[in-house]
Amino acid sequence: MSEASKLGQIKALCFDVFGTVVDWRTTVINELQLFGSEQAINTNWSEFADRWRTEGYMGGMRLVQQGSLSFQTADALHLRMLNILLEEIGFDTQNNIRAVEHLNTVWHRLQPWPDSVTGLESLRSRFIVSTLSNGNMSLLTNMAKHSNLRWDVILSAEITGAFKPNPECYRNAANLLGLDTNEIMLVAAHESDLLAAQAVGFGTAYVFRPNEYGSDNKKTLSPDLPFDFIANDFNQLAELLTTR
Amino acid sequence: MSEASKLGQIKALCFDVFGTVVDWRTTVINELQLFGSEQAINTNWSEFADRWRTEGYMGGMRLVQQGSLSFQTADALHLRMLNILLEEIGFDTQNNIRAVEHLNTVWHRLQPWPDSVTGLESLRSRFIVSTLSNGNMSLLTNMAKHSNLRWDVILSAEITGAFKPNPECYRNAANLLGLDTNEIMLVAAHESDLLAAQAVGFGTAYVFRPNEYGSDNKKTLSPDLPFDFIANDFNQLAELLTTR
Repeated sequence: MSEASKLGQIKALCFDVFGTVVDWRTTVINELQLFGSEQAINTNWSEFADRWRTEGYMGGMRLVQQGSLSFQTADALHLRMLNILLEEIGFDTQNNIRAVEHLNTVWHRLQPWPDSVTGLESLRSRFIVSTLSNGNMSLLTNMAKHSNLRWDVILSAEITGAFKPNPECYRNAANLLGLDTNEIMLVAAHESDLLAAQAVGFGTAYVFRPNEYGSDNKKTLSPDLPFDFIANDFNQLAELLTTR
Repeated sequence: MSEASKLGQIKALCFDVFGTVVDWRTTVINELQLFGSEQAINTNWSEFADRWRTEGYMGGMRLVQQGSLSFQTADALHLRMLNILLEEIGFDTQNNIRAVEHLNTVWHRLQPWPDSVTGLESLRSRFIVSTLSNGNMSLLTNMAKHSNLRWDVILSAEITGAFKPNPECYRNAANLLGLDTNEIMLVAAHESDLLAAQAVGFGTAYVFRPNEYGSDNKKTLSPDLPFDFIANDFNQLAELLTTR
């Protein structure tokens, strides 16, 4: 099927959020540094942020997918790892429960990439725009309000009780949107997410976010990505999807 | 607890939708009349609309609550009854499946009451505003887009797999919002909905919509309603909730 006729049947765009819509790493490092200076503790906060993300969130989701941990929210996975990481650097988490809980909600306050708000608004004029994130519903709701991200609807792995890339997550999104999977396109900065969506029939748009893991650790753009559209940001994606 | 301190703990407003936010009856009758003239059929479309609502939707939900029908979406309950009603007046539904399906989605295109859009926008400045409707997710999403209702998040009985006034429906909304039930207020034009929300700890705001069942069949305002706030429309509600 041609690109144009494939696009013609798309009614909704589902967006991955962490890394695709928001720059989690910069926001998290900034808040960690602030927390460190308030609490008079110091460490390499960039490494702390990366371990929080990789070992806590990604690692936690892997345990859930393997069945060795029951499904739980991103908030719960984050809090579990935050306590471990803070205790490693000698912080008394037991006597600072409220401060730790507040810090844990930094993931509700992530800043969008510079193009996200305007690009989304353009795309919203032609498509239903939805999140499809492993973040929980309250996290995504608070983030949208905090960062002025205008979604038509917020969908999360939490509703399905299974994390992406479990195919049920994408199928359930289609079901809740009242659409066939081939009427939906996933927008994401991560190949594995897009491949899983593609496998259940979604269209795919890869957005290249080279700085997701920091400017010292830039991602490179793989050649021959097997996706329907490839864009450098949401404004370019809006041009690709709304002007033909 | 005083009204002011009770309000002080409220972080989110959950809105009933049909009758509270949108004037379902006027929109449905208008589209039915148009359908009748296009298809050259005539009947009392006001009565048709009332039966569609009362016997189809309310009746269907009652059967689900009693366990004699498995949970299904509002769309499915509407379509089931629409076919029955159209066949009663001799319309050939079998050979007009697409026209019937389109007519069935009139519930996705309901017009708001005149104060709904502006009132919601005012309330959104202070609270998380969410639907909490027995309508399904796609119905609510399409309606919001069609009628410019700006929700922070859309929640539906469909997510819980149980209709209001099942207490699980309200409890699950609180869970998904990451809030305690006493941090949420239900806004509704229906006493039974508010009483069920109150029973699980929600605050309550009754909005008086005298014309929900038509100007010939006006609702009266019951004296001594046991709710925290009573308002004539969303603008008045915004004044009550945001100026103290």
